[in-house]
Amino acid sequence: MSLPDSPIVPTIPLYAEGKNHGYLRLPYSRNDSAWGSVMIPITVIRNGSGPTALLTGGNHGDEYEGPIALQALTHDLEPAEVTGRIIIVPFMNHPAFLAGTRVSPLDGGNLNRLFPGRPDGTVTQKIADYFIRTLVPMADIVLDFHSGGKTLEFVPFAAAHVLDDAEHQGRCIAAMEAFNAPYSMTLREIDPVGMFDTSVEALGKTFVSTEIYGGGTASARSARIARKGTVNVLKHAGILAGEPDCAPSTAIDTTPAGCYHFAEMTGMMEPLVDLGETVAEGDALMRIWLTTNTGDPPLTVRSKRDGILAGRHFPGLVKLGDCLAVVASPIED
Amino acid sequence: MSLPDSPIVPTIPLYAEGKNHGYLRLPYSRNDSAWGSVMIPITVIRNGSGPTALLTGGNHGDEYEGPIALQALTHDLEPAEVTGRIIIVPFMNHPAFLAGTRVSPLDGGNLNRLFPGRPDGTVTQKIADYFIRTLVPMADIVLDFHSGGKTLEFVPFAAAHVLDDAEHQGRCIAAMEAFNAPYSMTLREIDPVGMFDTSVEALGKTFVSTEIYGGGTASARSARIARKGTVNVLKHAGILAGEPDCAPSTAIDTTPAGCYHFAEMTGMMEPLVDLGETVAEGDALMRIWLTTNTGDPPLTVRSKRDGILAGRHFPGLVKLGDCLAVVASPIED
Amino acid sequence: MSLPDSPIVPTIPLYAEGKNHGYLRLPYSRNDSAWGSVMIPITVIRNGSGPTALLTGGNHGDEYEGPIALQALTHDLEPAEVTGRIIIVPFMNHPAFLAGTRVSPLDGGNLNRLFPGRPDGTVTQKIADYFIRTLVPMADIVLDFHSGGKTLEFVPFAAAHVLDDAEHQGRCIAAMEAFNAPYSMTLREIDPVGMFDTSVEALGKTFVSTEIYGGGTASARSARIARKGTVNVLKHAGILAGEPDCAPSTAIDTTPAGCYHFAEMTGMMEPLVDLGETVAEGDALMRIWLTTNTGDPPLTVRSKRDGILAGRHFPGLVKLGDCLAVVASPIED
Amino acid sequence: MSLPDSPIVPTIPLYAEGKNHGYLRLPYSRNDSAWGSVMIPITVIRNGSGPTALLTGGNHGDEYEGPIALQALTHDLEPAEVTGRIIIVPFMNHPAFLAGTRVSPLDGGNLNRLFPGRPDGTVTQKIADYFIRTLVPMADIVLDFHSGGKTLEFVPFAAAHVLDDAEHQGRCIAAMEAFNAPYSMTLREIDPVGMFDTSVEALGKTFVSTEIYGGGTASARSARIARKGTVNVLKHAGILAGEPDCAPSTAIDTTPAGCYHFAEMTGMMEPLVDLGETVAEGDALMRIWLTTNTGDPPLTVRSKRDGILAGRHFPGLVKLGDCLAVVASPIED
Amino acid sequence: MSLPDSPIVPTIPLYAEGKNHGYLRLPYSRNDSAWGSVMIPITVIRNGSGPTALLTGGNHGDEYEGPIALQALTHDLEPAEVTGRIIIVPFMNHPAFLAGTRVSPLDGGNLNRLFPGRPDGTVTQKIADYFIRTLVPMADIVLDFHSGGKTLEFVPFAAAHVLDDAEHQGRCIAAMEAFNAPYSMTLREIDPVGMFDTSVEALGKTFVSTEIYGGGTASARSARIARKGTVNVLKHAGILAGEPDCAPSTAIDTTPAGCYHFAEMTGMMEPLVDLGETVAEGDALMRIWLTTNTGDPPLTVRSKRDGILAGRHFPGLVKLGDCLAVVASPIED
Amino acid sequence: MSLPDSPIVPTIPLYAEGKNHGYLRLPYSRNDSAWGSVMIPITVIRNGSGPTALLTGGNHGDEYEGPIALQALTHDLEPAEVTGRIIIVPFMNHPAFLAGTRVSPLDGGNLNRLFPGRPDGTVTQKIADYFIRTLVPMADIVLDFHSGGKTLEFVPFAAAHVLDDAEHQGRCIAAMEAFNAPYSMTLREIDPVGMFDTSVEALGKTFVSTEIYGGGTASARSARIARKGTVNVLKHAGILAGEPDCAPSTAIDTTPAGCYHFAEMTGMMEPLVDLGETVAEGDALMRIWLTTNTGDPPLTVRSKRDGILAGRHFPGLVKLGDCLAVVASPIED
Repeated sequence: MSLPDSPIVPTIPLYAEGKNHGYLRLPYSRNDSAWGSVMIPITVIRNGSGPTALLTGGNHGDEYEGPIALQALTHDLEPAEVTGRIIIVPFMNHPAFLAGTRVSPLDGGNLNRLFPGRPDGTVTQKIADYFIRTLVPMADIVLDFHSGGKTLEFVPFAAAHVLDDAEHQGRCIAAMEAFNAPYSMTLREIDPVGMFDTSVEALGKTFVSTEIYGGGTASARSARIARKGTVNVLKHAGILAGEPDCAPSTAIDTTPAGCYHFAEMTGMMEPLVDLGETVAEGDALMRIWLTTNTGDPPLTVRSKRDGILAGRHFPGLVKLGDCLAVVASPIED
Repeated sequence: MSLPDSPIVPTIPLYAEGKNHGYLRLPYSRNDSAWGSVMIPITVIRNGSGPTALLTGGNHGDEYEGPIALQALTHDLEPAEVTGRIIIVPFMNHPAFLAGTRVSPLDGGNLNRLFPGRPDGTVTQKIADYFIRTLVPMADIVLDFHSGGKTLEFVPFAAAHVLDDAEHQGRCIAAMEAFNAPYSMTLREIDPVGMFDTSVEALGKTFVSTEIYGGGTASARSARIARKGTVNVLKHAGILAGEPDCAPSTAIDTTPAGCYHFAEMTGMMEPLVDLGETVAEGDALMRIWLTTNTGDPPLTVRSKRDGILAGRHFPGLVKLGDCLAVVASPIED
Repeated sequence: MSLPDSPIVPTIPLYAEGKNHGYLRLPYSRNDSAWGSVMIPITVIRNGSGPTALLTGGNHGDEYEGPIALQALTHDLEPAEVTGRIIIVPFMNHPAFLAGTRVSPLDGGNLNRLFPGRPDGTVTQKIADYFIRTLVPMADIVLDFHSGGKTLEFVPFAAAHVLDDAEHQGRCIAAMEAFNAPYSMTLREIDPVGMFDTSVEALGKTFVSTEIYGGGTASARSARIARKGTVNVLKHAGILAGEPDCAPSTAIDTTPAGCYHFAEMTGMMEPLVDLGETVAEGDALMRIWLTTNTGDPPLTVRSKRDGILAGRHFPGLVKLGDCLAVVASPIED
Repeated sequence: MSLPDSPIVPTIPLYAEGKNHGYLRLPYSRNDSAWGSVMIPITVIRNGSGPTALLTGGNHGDEYEGPIALQALTHDLEPAEVTGRIIIVPFMNHPAFLAGTRVSPLDGGNLNRLFPGRPDGTVTQKIADYFIRTLVPMADIVLDFHSGGKTLEFVPFAAAHVLDDAEHQGRCIAAMEAFNAPYSMTLREIDPVGMFDTSVEALGKTFVSTEIYGGGTASARSARIARKGTVNVLKHAGILAGEPDCAPSTAIDTTPAGCYHFAEMTGMMEPLVDLGETVAEGDALMRIWLTTNTGDPPLTVRSKRDGILAGRHFPGLVKLGDCLAVVASPIED
Repeated sequence: MSLPDSPIVPTIPLYAEGKNHGYLRLPYSRNDSAWGSVMIPITVIRNGSGPTALLTGGNHGDEYEGPIALQALTHDLEPAEVTGRIIIVPFMNHPAFLAGTRVSPLDGGNLNRLFPGRPDGTVTQKIADYFIRTLVPMADIVLDFHSGGKTLEFVPFAAAHVLDDAEHQGRCIAAMEAFNAPYSMTLREIDPVGMFDTSVEALGKTFVSTEIYGGGTASARSARIARKGTVNVLKHAGILAGEPDCAPSTAIDTTPAGCYHFAEMTGMMEPLVDLGETVAEGDALMRIWLTTNTGDPPLTVRSKRDGILAGRHFPGLVKLGDCLAVVASPIED
Repeated sequence: MSLPDSPIVPTIPLYAEGKNHGYLRLPYSRNDSAWGSVMIPITVIRNGSGPTALLTGGNHGDEYEGPIALQALTHDLEPAEVTGRIIIVPFMNHPAFLAGTRVSPLDGGNLNRLFPGRPDGTVTQKIADYFIRTLVPMADIVLDFHSGGKTLEFVPFAAAHVLDDAEHQGRCIAAMEAFNAPYSMTLREIDPVGMFDTSVEALGKTFVSTEIYGGGTASARSARIARKGTVNVLKHAGILAGEPDCAPSTAIDTTPAGCYHFAEMTGMMEPLVDLGETVAEGDALMRIWLTTNTGDPPLTVRSKRDGILAGRHFPGLVKLGDCLAVVASPIED
């Protein structure tokens, strides 16, 4: 059975020369606006023929490096600098982004678990569907920004996936390397169902994603990584002129057993190791203290493997079941 | 008119020898517990005669360095190590702390603006009153921990106030120096109404407070600063044996005109300077970008003075009126 | 696969002679009533043989003209005045109606986008299913009342659809003309998926719907239009005696391109044209002013076509993406 | 005991020549911004010496005619057109205005019942205090806009109060007549406690207020009344050149016994009389129908006096205790 | 300073002969009704001269025995049966009663901690003030019903206070004995501030209150106790004819030290003793089990004294600080 | 199409000898924990070979007898007492249990209407799926505890279903009799869709369920029934040594027409019959009184059949459509 058309309509042409700013308009009937809409900002910059890059941020609504780099690009970049086309959506899950939350306040949708979406589903499913059936097919290369969000924090890395097709994988790794984050990761996704990555790769597109710190904030340092990576990828794709500006990057891996550490107690965390520091198996990573009384001993969380602390729980309070720490393996060349 | 007695009753004796863990029980009738109570954990460690220190964290409920250092102390410290008495309340505004919020979820109370409190007021006012009329009078020295909380972040400093009485001020500055945070601040509070500081100082007590990073998290580094400062202050007071362990500390000042920068626009921040970095008057501190459309220029926020970036807005989104940046003056000796 | 039976059970017989008042009882287990029910009021008036009319209001829960006319009918009308049967459900989406909201507070369901429903779906889907599989099949003619609700306002009109079957369309248009609202509209629905209209028409029934002002209120004038139209339709159907009382009605059309105007800015609206007034292409329809600062110029919204203002956004505040204005074409005979 | 200073600071000078747009900044610490602020937009237009007018809208946050007329004025009016000074605050209770609610979402404050306010009270009390102690003393004449808001609707009128001082009352009535709404009212407030009116009049200022329709919307007609009245009052005050543009206005009175009709039942209203229509004592004003079952007779609400319908309940649903209707007496000359 | 008049106005005369049903109307402006009211139902039954009884239920909104007995009385009792006057308010804190909650949903007010109230305070304070300044002064005897509410459960008892004036105390005890609940209690209130009891007794009135089971429900047994007690008290007062119908009643006392047992742990309770059962000091009253993991030992709560279990925590879950058990002393004659 | 694997992973081995306490970890990404988990406590006790019993409580989150008996068992029982294996999950719908609500606060899921669940559905559907595809297949006998929850109350009974297979039914009835609650019920479920019972029985397992009072609490008496029944069933299964301890039990039936009584009015209930009492057809079961005014007659609810009151509505307030009473038929041998 063929899918119905997407209800989303762009307010600007997606193929026109020059720079156009507009919206992806998604009708959304609700108590406070019977004939209201979700309006996702979009910019398309085109200059002649050449490849198309789709640049996306705000897949999760509480991650800021991608939105900063991409929103800046919509303002800063002139068509004359471009060869081909750049489609920029700085805030994919715009309702979540405006709310400052990971998932959509409209339907609870975690966009990055709802691909390829549905044109007749919830608001978030409709957004996913529009990207997969309309925008991604127009692109040669897709760069999707992530950070840790309000509840996680990572060392800054770009990532590419291990893919069945070697040529395809090679393209993705080359783009990831062009991004040139301080850390780089090539991984096989353990649970790929519903991810943007999977759906984009299924269409054969070159795909790069990132994690760049987190905690629901951005810093001057983290914003610079995102801005530089964006320009590097566009240069790599031949859409901007010049060569990517590359510094050394540390290769890491988070797929071995024992990388992830989950909380078996609710309380307050006392970190004992900071991001990027080296740990050995058995080292204490953090203590968890009770918050309802004084005097009890803490639960000490110990590393299940050697490596570096590549990710961590961010909020000071910990809930039973939270991911506390990701200990990654550095990869030797 | 004399004030009524506090409704708060401790479940442990406050003068007994040894180490006792218990609660400050505050009756709190509500829909889900007609005869319920707010229970604030407290530990008292006493060994013979000597000075009394009151150590407090969780004055704001989303700040973690103080609670970590103090909760650890309730577990780690043995009476034999103590000369005198230590009263430890790691989570003063316990309802706020459990909720992970600056103010109390029970009455919206910002504890640090409600001193000296009222025994017949709201829950938060009752807590304030109990400290001022019962616990503070028992103490010779009071150490109250703050960090930036979920929405601010500071370079780590200890602070003492400029006071009318030179001897009193001298005691406070000496204790602040003993804490030995990386930065130190001696200030005259511009708007002291309702602060714990003011009420404690009005009773002639030696008082030290802190700001140690923020963002609603803690790191290994920030927790170590709090732990070391606590022990240093107790050594300085003669309650623990030995000398404070002191390294160089940078003196800063945030009282001159132009230190504070407020947002005149709602949007997303792009920081251009990180905490501790030096700026000159007119330097761009951050850009604020719109989040409802693409392509518009940002508002650039520029420093109103020379100095170092001592504090900053933390969340990625900025609201009209938020404090964005605090530019402090380094103080020459 | 055949659908399961509806869980809805009427508490009154649907075929009995006389006038019976009762409920459509829909079991609804929830935290505040483990074995609770949604209870949708219904009245059936029957007198001998003759056609059956199904009269419905409250399809959206914040529209009042239909509920007023139909609730009055359940009280005022005596079986002796009737030939055949009238099934009256003044508040179809009863949970939404009691809440005064467009969609159901129980499941967020917009009833008029959930037809033909599901017997094993959400509460709102179960209601839709019961109408389509139980009540509509009993009817010869269906009159479903709408108004603009809390967020829209329309000139008062009755509507019939352009249908593939000419005889069917003719019956619907005749009934719409019998209703005799001040305005009349014959339209092809652009997005008919999920509408009651579509499902009723698919069963070959004569169907009339309306829009009669809005704003979440009713006036003496609007209530009179609904009351007169109801009686007129019943007379037209031969269920009540006599001829419809008809005055001139203006035919309008809202299907041409450019009828709908959406907001590309959030702010406060200043209407420049009122409902029913004539506009030319390029005329200013409203201004939108910022609400976060003073002194900025407004965005002026201009009509994309000639026509009359047939519908408008109601609340004083406008959100990005809201439908602001519907400019209809008057139809010449 | 003297009051403390207001914590509110304007970001623009209040006496400077020319046109300045800025904010009244009120520090407001909260969970989502520890050092946040409420920012109330303000414009001051000054040209040489002459009287000062203070123009205010948004005293209640769901009333739009005043904000429209005043926000337009901040943009449209040039200093050269002015003799003296105009202080314009289109959204007094800005938090309520942004929320589209009568009272403040921050503290539940109904601003117009909290004058003269407190500098150390809630956010809304602080706003009230700043007006009474800072802005009103600068003014010779104050025009404060009201409409019915989301839950009431009135015939459009300007109002002045019966005052003890004849000269003062004369000034106010003259200004009210200059406003020239379709209806005019001179009244003695029955319950004046906490109103802006009372506090302004206590300072001897000329004061005019209004009610201009309502329902939480504005129309082209209602906006025109507010715009014309504003200009008329400024001309009357000698701040703008020229004579007020005046048409006949109907004098009405709502102070006699029996004007107000309250609901003794919860249900759905069926209005039988529209605003401005004439009624006699005993006439049916509306019916109230049950919404939980069908078939019951309505409660008919009858007028307690002769007059015209000057005000009415707006939402389609009625709650026990709501004011349903205001029947005013036309006043003969 | 004299207090302002109460804003509350009764819709019926309070002195008229016969039986009148109406409301205490309290103006309450809010977002969903600018000129709305709180409407507290009241019935006054009068027949000639004689004493006045004020009968109140719903002081806490989740207690049902009083409202049942009193609402039944408003329907069942005829003026001819009465000598004097009965003022019946079955639902004092009507907003709380409609919500099914202990405290008011409008302002969080726990009515029985807000006496004597304020005419210019919150809604709940205004209700308190009206009773103390208007209704109580009209009464010779006041009967105020309580049960345990949703979170507590008690053996059924009537209570009178130890008072300074022996004659006054004697009148209260006689009325309490006339009520003739299965248990009886004469007590000195430990924390009387804000209670209705205290304010009524301060006016010299005969006062009886009750606790009759709880848990947010009523049973046939508990409703019969309340109905019988009401009639007994009215007979005792000479307002109804005949003698109180009295059975043996057990005298108990809950004022000695050690009666109250509070939770020092959050979890799930396993009761080991039921209401009315006898316990010895040291007996296990209940176990508290963790709910976040399996396998841990429970905390066993032991009785601090000999007695009978007179009250208990009701919900299955227990929060830190909840009152778990009240062990009362039976009193020997 | 084969189902995907469950995302749930146990943190302990399910087949190991001895006693292991751990969690069923279900990844659950959300705003307050991007990589968070739902953690359902589980204990497995194994000693050699023998049958496996699966014991479950907290299927509905506001029912306490099962959780008490099963949580106690995880602590009290030693492997040496066991022959075979016992899998204990005291809080199946753990999110609901922690919230004290019937349905899950995460997705509104009523677990006992969502079997057999989905591995790619909502949180509650994933839990259901894990039980049906992983835990139930390991079991020979399943005991699932229910009580009335916060809104219903039942006489205490164990229940078995009428099944198509006589041997299977015989096993279930024997286990139900071994449980030996004061009442026993053998029934054919009228609406079995989605129930745990149905899915477990479809796998051929011996299945027993219960209802043991309710109201959102537990008593010493009700907890003893659950504890004794649990041990009895384990003895019956041969997993614990010894014979079940059995007293007489009354057989009842709630499947005949007329057992269930629903509310056709909203108000306050006055029960006239208590649980376990005998009623005749036409007897008054309860009165429902209005709560919005005084003086009106109540609606009297009468029994539609002879029997005993086996279940009842618990909260003092009644809503239109609530189940008020279940009148069961005692069964003669």
